[in-house]
Amino acid sequence: MRAYIGEVSFDYPARRARLAALLPDHEVHALLVTSPVNVQYLTGLASSNAAVLVRADGSALLATDNRYIDKARTLDVPVVEAPDVAGTLAEPGAGIEAAIMSVATYRRLGEGLVPLGPVVEVLRAAKDDGELELLRTACAITDQAFADISGKIIPGITERDLARLLENRMIELGADKPAFDTIVAAGENGATPHHAPTDRPLRAGDLVTMDFGARYQGYHADMTRTVSLGPPAAWQREVYDLVAQAQRAGRQALAPGAESRDVDAAARTVIEDAGYGDRFRHGLGHGVGLEIHEEPFLGPARTGRLEDRVPITVEPGVYLPGRGGVRIEDTLVTREGGPELFTKTTKELLVL
Amino acid sequence: MRAYIGEVSFDYPARRARLAALLPDHEVHALLVTSPVNVQYLTGLASSNAAVLVRADGSALLATDNRYIDKARTLDVPVVEAPDVAGTLAEPGAGIEAAIMSVATYRRLGEGLVPLGPVVEVLRAAKDDGELELLRTACAITDQAFADISGKIIPGITERDLARLLENRMIELGADKPAFDTIVAAGENGATPHHAPTDRPLRAGDLVTMDFGARYQGYHADMTRTVSLGPPAAWQREVYDLVAQAQRAGRQALAPGAESRDVDAAARTVIEDAGYGDRFRHGLGHGVGLEIHEEPFLGPARTGRLEDRVPITVEPGVYLPGRGGVRIEDTLVTREGGPELFTKTTKELLVL
Repeated sequence: MRAYIGEVSFDYPARRARLAALLPDHEVHALLVTSPVNVQYLTGLASSNAAVLVRADGSALLATDNRYIDKARTLDVPVVEAPDVAGTLAEPGAGIEAAIMSVATYRRLGEGLVPLGPVVEVLRAAKDDGELELLRTACAITDQAFADISGKIIPGITERDLARLLENRMIELGADKPAFDTIVAAGENGATPHHAPTDRPLRAGDLVTMDFGARYQGYHADMTRTVSLGPPAAWQREVYDLVAQAQRAGRQALAPGAESRDVDAAARTVIEDAGYGDRFRHGLGHGVGLEIHEEPFLGPARTGRLEDRVPITVEPGVYLPGRGGVRIEDTLVTREGGPELFTKTTKELLVL
Repeated sequence: MRAYIGEVSFDYPARRARLAALLPDHEVHALLVTSPVNVQYLTGLASSNAAVLVRADGSALLATDNRYIDKARTLDVPVVEAPDVAGTLAEPGAGIEAAIMSVATYRRLGEGLVPLGPVVEVLRAAKDDGELELLRTACAITDQAFADISGKIIPGITERDLARLLENRMIELGADKPAFDTIVAAGENGATPHHAPTDRPLRAGDLVTMDFGARYQGYHADMTRTVSLGPPAAWQREVYDLVAQAQRAGRQALAPGAESRDVDAAARTVIEDAGYGDRFRHGLGHGVGLEIHEEPFLGPARTGRLEDRVPITVEPGVYLPGRGGVRIEDTLVTREGGPELFTKTTKELLVL
C-alpha cells in the first residue's frame, strides 16, 4: 500500500494557454508569476526560487537559479538561468502578483509593473482529473492512517505522541509528508482551534480533536475528527451533535454555482440557532490543492460562486474556553448532482 | 532522551528595547513588524497572522486574530484582536518590512509607510544564551539521529525510506519536526544540491549525501554528511577530501569581525585551486535560528562582518553531473577564540 498511483503528469502548456486567455481582461500583455506554487502549476517546476513570464500569445519564459536549472531544462518551456528570477523577467506593462511580490522587489524592479489580484489562484480552484486523483489518494491515505492508529487513542498517550503516530503512519502509507502540522487537542485544549500538540496525556472523559492530512505528490488532504474517551457527558454529546448537524448542512450546500458566503451561512446558522454563534469564529472552509489553504474560501464575508470540480473543506467547530471543543472536517469536491466525499472516515461520535 | 531541556523563556521586552533603540537610525518613530517569525522573536507569539508595532520609546502593540488571541493575552505586551493585523496597526511614518510585506498590503495601507530593509533580522543574528542552548540541543538530536540510523545506510534501502528514518528518529528524540525537507541523494543524484528523495535504492559504489536537521523549540539545526557505500573510487575519495579541506578552511575563517565574503572565499579558493570552481555554485552558508535560512549569509557577493554568537552553517560542495557529488556541512557558532562546533558527527569519510 505504499505508492497508490504512479506519477501523474499535467498539460502545462494548456494551463498557460488558459492563463494567457485571461490576460486581456486584466489589461496586461503578460503576467510575471512569482508565487512558487503558481510557477509549479504552470510549468511543473517545484522550487523555492523561480518565476515565469506568461504572455497573452501563450508563450512563456521560465527563470530559476542553478539549484533547479537542470530540472527546469527537462520541462516543456523555454528557460533562463538567473538568481534574480523576477528581475530577469520583469518588463514594463507586465502584471505582477500583488499578494505575492514583496514591496522590496517591487520597488527594485521599477514602476512599470501592474499590480494584479489573484489570477492563477482562481484558475487553480477547479481541478482536472489528474489533480482530483491525487487529492483522492491523499485523502485515502489520511483515512487509512486514522483507522490504523485509532487503537492507540487511549488514556495515557500524549497529544504529541498521538500526532507523531498519525504523521508517521501517513508517511508509511505513501504520503510525501504531512500536509500541515497535525493538531491533537485533548480536553480543555480543544477550545483552541489551532492548538499545537503538547505533552498533556489523554484522559478518560476527554473529547479529543485531531486535525491532520497527507500530502501526496504535492496535493493536500485535510480532515478533522473529534472522538470521546469514554462515554461522553451530556454537554459533550450535545455539542458534538450540533457540530455534526452544522457540518452536514454545510456539505449539502456545496454545489457548483453556490455563493461562498451562502455555504458558510448554511452551517453557521445551525450553530447560531443553538446559541453557540460566538463560539464558532473561523471560516467554514477553504480550497485545497497544491496548497493546504487556497481559493476559494468559505466565510461570512466571502463573495463569489463555486465552480464545478473544486476540492474544498467543510469544518465547523464549537469551542468552549476551559471545557473543550468539537470540530468535524471533510475534504469534498463540488460536483453537479452533489459533492463527492474524499475523506470517508465515519462522522459518528467514536467512543474509545 | 525525549525532552533534552525544559522550555526556555526569553526577555521579549529587552528585545523590543534593542529594536526601539535602532529606529532613529532608520528615521522612523515606529516599526510595523509583519514577519511572523519576527513577531515571534519580539513577543513570543508563534502564529500565521500577527503583527506588532514597536515604537522608538520601547512601547509596543500586538495584533492577532481570534485563533491566537488567547495565547497572545498571556504575553507581556498589550494586544488587540483584529483579523487585519497590519491594517489595524499601520500609521503614517511607521517603517515597514519591505522584504516581507506584499505589494497588495502596502497599496491597501497607504503611502505614509516607510519601506525599510532588514532590521529585526539583523538583531536576530547574534543569539542569547537560551537560543544557543536550543540550537545546541537541536544539533545534538541531529547527531544522535544520524548515529542511530547509520546501520540502515546499506544497499537496497531507498532514498525516500532513508530520509523517513532520519526524520522519524529526530522526532522520537524530541524534535518538534524536521527543520526542513530532508535531502538524501545517492549516486548520480548527488550532483543535484537540492535533490528530493526518490525511490532509487542505494547501491554499492554510491556516494550518499544526507542533508537534514532537527527543529527544537522552534530553533533549526542543519547538517550534511556524505558517506561511501563500499570502498570509494579514486575520484570519489579525491572529491571528498577536497570538500573536507574546503569545509575546514571555511570553519577556520569563521570569527567575529570576519567579512562574510572572506569566509566564503576561504573555502571557495580551495575548490577553485583544485579546478572545481564551476562545480560549487551556491553560497558557503547561512545563519540558523528561528528560520532555517536567516541572516547572515556567506557568499562571494555578501558584505558585512560577522558578530560574536552567530550560529551559521559552513557547507561547501562539489557536484559532478551524471556522476554524483559531495557536500559536508556543519552548524557552528562564532566565538572569540574560535567557533564552537554544534554538529559533532565525524567528518571522516565513512565507508559503510
